[in-house]
Amino acid sequence: MHVDLNADMGESFGPWRMGDDAALLRTVTSANIACGGHAGDADTMAATLQLAHTNGVGIGAHPGFMDLAGFGRNRISVPRVTLQNQIRYQVAASIGMARSVGAKVRHLKLHGAVANMASEDPVLARDLYEAALSVDPDLIIMVLAATAQQQAVSELGCIWAGEIFADRAYNEDATLVDRSISGAVIHDPVVAGTRMVEMVKAGAIITESGKHIPAAIDTICLHGDTPTAVAIAQSVRASLEADGITVTTFHGRT
Amino acid sequence: MHVDLNADMGESFGPWRMGDDAALLRTVTSANIACGGHAGDADTMAATLQLAHTNGVGIGAHPGFMDLAGFGRNRISVPRVTLQNQIRYQVAASIGMARSVGAKVRHLKLHGAVANMASEDPVLARDLYEAALSVDPDLIIMVLAATAQQQAVSELGCIWAGEIFADRAYNEDATLVDRSISGAVIHDPVVAGTRMVEMVKAGAIITESGKHIPAAIDTICLHGDTPTAVAIAQSVRASLEADGITVTTFHGRT
Amino acid sequence: MHVDLNADMGESFGPWRMGDDAALLRTVTSANIACGGHAGDADTMAATLQLAHTNGVGIGAHPGFMDLAGFGRNRISVPRVTLQNQIRYQVAASIGMARSVGAKVRHLKLHGAVANMASEDPVLARDLYEAALSVDPDLIIMVLAATAQQQAVSELGCIWAGEIFADRAYNEDATLVDRSISGAVIHDPVVAGTRMVEMVKAGAIITESGKHIPAAIDTICLHGDTPTAVAIAQSVRASLEADGITVTTFHGRT
Amino acid sequence: MHVDLNADMGESFGPWRMGDDAALLRTVTSANIACGGHAGDADTMAATLQLAHTNGVGIGAHPGFMDLAGFGRNRISVPRVTLQNQIRYQVAASIGMARSVGAKVRHLKLHGAVANMASEDPVLARDLYEAALSVDPDLIIMVLAATAQQQAVSELGCIWAGEIFADRAYNEDATLVDRSISGAVIHDPVVAGTRMVEMVKAGAIITESGKHIPAAIDTICLHGDTPTAVAIAQSVRASLEADGITVTTFHGRT
Repeated sequence: MHVDLNADMGESFGPWRMGDDAALLRTVTSANIACGGHAGDADTMAATLQLAHTNGVGIGAHPGFMDLAGFGRNRISVPRVTLQNQIRYQVAASIGMARSVGAKVRHLKLHGAVANMASEDPVLARDLYEAALSVDPDLIIMVLAATAQQQAVSELGCIWAGEIFADRAYNEDATLVDRSISGAVIHDPVVAGTRMVEMVKAGAIITESGKHIPAAIDTICLHGDTPTAVAIAQSVRASLEADGITVTTFHGRT
Repeated sequence: MHVDLNADMGESFGPWRMGDDAALLRTVTSANIACGGHAGDADTMAATLQLAHTNGVGIGAHPGFMDLAGFGRNRISVPRVTLQNQIRYQVAASIGMARSVGAKVRHLKLHGAVANMASEDPVLARDLYEAALSVDPDLIIMVLAATAQQQAVSELGCIWAGEIFADRAYNEDATLVDRSISGAVIHDPVVAGTRMVEMVKAGAIITESGKHIPAAIDTICLHGDTPTAVAIAQSVRASLEADGITVTTFHGRT
Repeated sequence: MHVDLNADMGESFGPWRMGDDAALLRTVTSANIACGGHAGDADTMAATLQLAHTNGVGIGAHPGFMDLAGFGRNRISVPRVTLQNQIRYQVAASIGMARSVGAKVRHLKLHGAVANMASEDPVLARDLYEAALSVDPDLIIMVLAATAQQQAVSELGCIWAGEIFADRAYNEDATLVDRSISGAVIHDPVVAGTRMVEMVKAGAIITESGKHIPAAIDTICLHGDTPTAVAIAQSVRASLEADGITVTTFHGRT
Repeated sequence: MHVDLNADMGESFGPWRMGDDAALLRTVTSANIACGGHAGDADTMAATLQLAHTNGVGIGAHPGFMDLAGFGRNRISVPRVTLQNQIRYQVAASIGMARSVGAKVRHLKLHGAVANMASEDPVLARDLYEAALSVDPDLIIMVLAATAQQQAVSELGCIWAGEIFADRAYNEDATLVDRSISGAVIHDPVVAGTRMVEMVKAGAIITESGKHIPAAIDTICLHGDTPTAVAIAQSVRASLEADGITVTTFHGRT
């Protein structure tokens, strides 16, 4: 039994720092690296790709809306073909920057608002994944398990990996509990670790009521930009390993 | 006897148009396509790459300073490693975007102020060419003949092609006559065509005084954003062909 | 009987030109000048403000979403307070730049997607107008007649002016006929001129069926970025004047 | 005997934070607030202006090169008139944003590379100060004492205030010791405090050798973005007050 741990990184920009990438890279097995759209400049990308490569971590392109000031968190009604080209651009930049430091981009994960939109809209998800795959057909698409993102990769027939959140509570229909509701976000590293062991062992998302929803759990998303990020990451990894679950880079499914 | 004709294109941005790329693509044999640094957004890049590919024209990445408002024409004292990463980023984006439309980037040409700086400083030129080659070692580097750019490719031992200008007068030392001096820019399509035939046949830059400076003339630069751009391009091509010089995509030199 | 003619201008950016502002400024009596959000850089603003001032034209700040690549045409889910601050920022820049060339900003007109959203949502409209008025409480708010924008200024009790379009057909409820429907956009300068004379004389929006909807018509919007822009502007002005309607800068209503 | 303490602030951008503005605002008497050129977005400006106003601190516009990724630290060869318009734009935005929160901009201080360039070139300094004063002729220009900046305000005959650095060593000609030289930057809060008391009492810049260069010391610059920023600020203030020097917002000189 094994699982991957992933986190977003490379989200600094110019003089501004975000997250403790070096610390996270000692714990995770996959890194989703910003591509200059919502965050990340050329220096940050080069340094983060290099550091992830040195740490033997699986590297992913992490494109989003091209909106630095909004950090990719605003929904933007860009024409579909423009959005596809913006995804192509970011993925392309990521792949070539990786090559320049001797590394390789193996997966794709959408960021922020565009990821949320794609988890609700399978046509959008498919359009964006097709855009990314037009740059590199071998990319493994990381999808939020049991959402429209997963439906899209099924329809496309591409290689993919399913993801759950370490620090978010789930509703009965496998959607995330709204952040405005108490208990929606798990801040306790021990609780996060215990939950992940249960879900990975069950091969299911476990909802607030205890209901099990069978899910493809290939990787666990750890957030990188919260005060407890590193503590939760370490606790989840330790809990998994203490229970005999190997933490290792995911293989893609078809 | 043969020579290539190149022009900058893909320099529109968002709602703003620049140049008549479709017309130029019927005349040139190589296209230097902006990469989003000084001009060109994801839509413009995709469309221009597609159009150049359809026209069977050799495709080049055309990176510059990341300064849209200044169109890459301002000199910027960015740290060297940052500038190298910015070149890597733009070249990477260009290569992947090309792949997504079934095309291939075969050459690199620097844009604007950074090109001028590299034509004066062989160490800068080498640093930037190395950055581009770290993304794709097979790129052919297009250099301004008889400048520090050419010195840099000699030192690097990479594949390259030498370029002269169709519409600029040359000083005795092979530098360009300053634009502030009368006659520095050639506006007459017929004069431009005649000069290019002479230089290509002579294998030399011919200065204002008539002096011949032997030069590697693989390609002739046609400007794309002037009122007479298309007329000069067509005249140069017609003049060359009338004199038995084949106009075709350049081969790289080593 | 009198009416104002307004057009958007100052929408160039960096090396890219848009519209023929100098020609339009000989015909219109109010200019809506971009503020650097969706278009317009510091040079363009300074030059356009100066030119409008020299032509004795009423000057307006024309803010939009801060999205140059999308030209302010994409709807963006920025938090309300952020959007208010972005409007404040653009209006502030406009007012101070005007002062630096001896001119004065007298009105505000929202641009593009944010204008469309405000014409549908009176709370949004009011929030954005309050933001602008917090910078200068004397601004005259230009609103699309008979929309939520007009409702907002009524609620605020501020000074305003009502606007209709010279080149757009109207539905029975005073909304614009969708651009996808034939006849939605009027391209014939003569037709545009005749319609405007009828509406101004009637003091009403006249719909496709001929229905009259009483409306506050203080100013007529002429588009600046279409091929027929200058011709329509001149025809509308000539038709109005031929019918004895004075074309002059609007006064605000309360 | 009295002196002002100033620090740069409002240098966050989008999701990225910089400096501890709230802590600094409890110590300084003047705040130089970024205007969106090198840092600072509309939200950051509004919040920082509000906070400075609430703290009763003198507010300054702090424009720089329009280069977020480079934080205004790169020298850029923008045409002079463009740079003047960019300064106008930033100052204008600052003044109007301040007005929208009930505050007032009373001084101007240049940022980063453009400030360094202006301290070396009196014509540049004068051109930029004139640009700022065209937006508001009552601005007090904060200048680096004994540099070309001071020469420029003398020539202009405008109101100004002279500034020295709390944490930088001075050469014999009143220029700053290069950062590459040991001792160029003072990291010890106690040393910084003691030096400032000496210089303010002497009315002179005291060089490394102990030489006194008479200088107009109206305000002391405290850096906001270093680890010891708040500690140095507090130590300088405490040392000054312990020696009977009143810390209060500067008056302008003519």
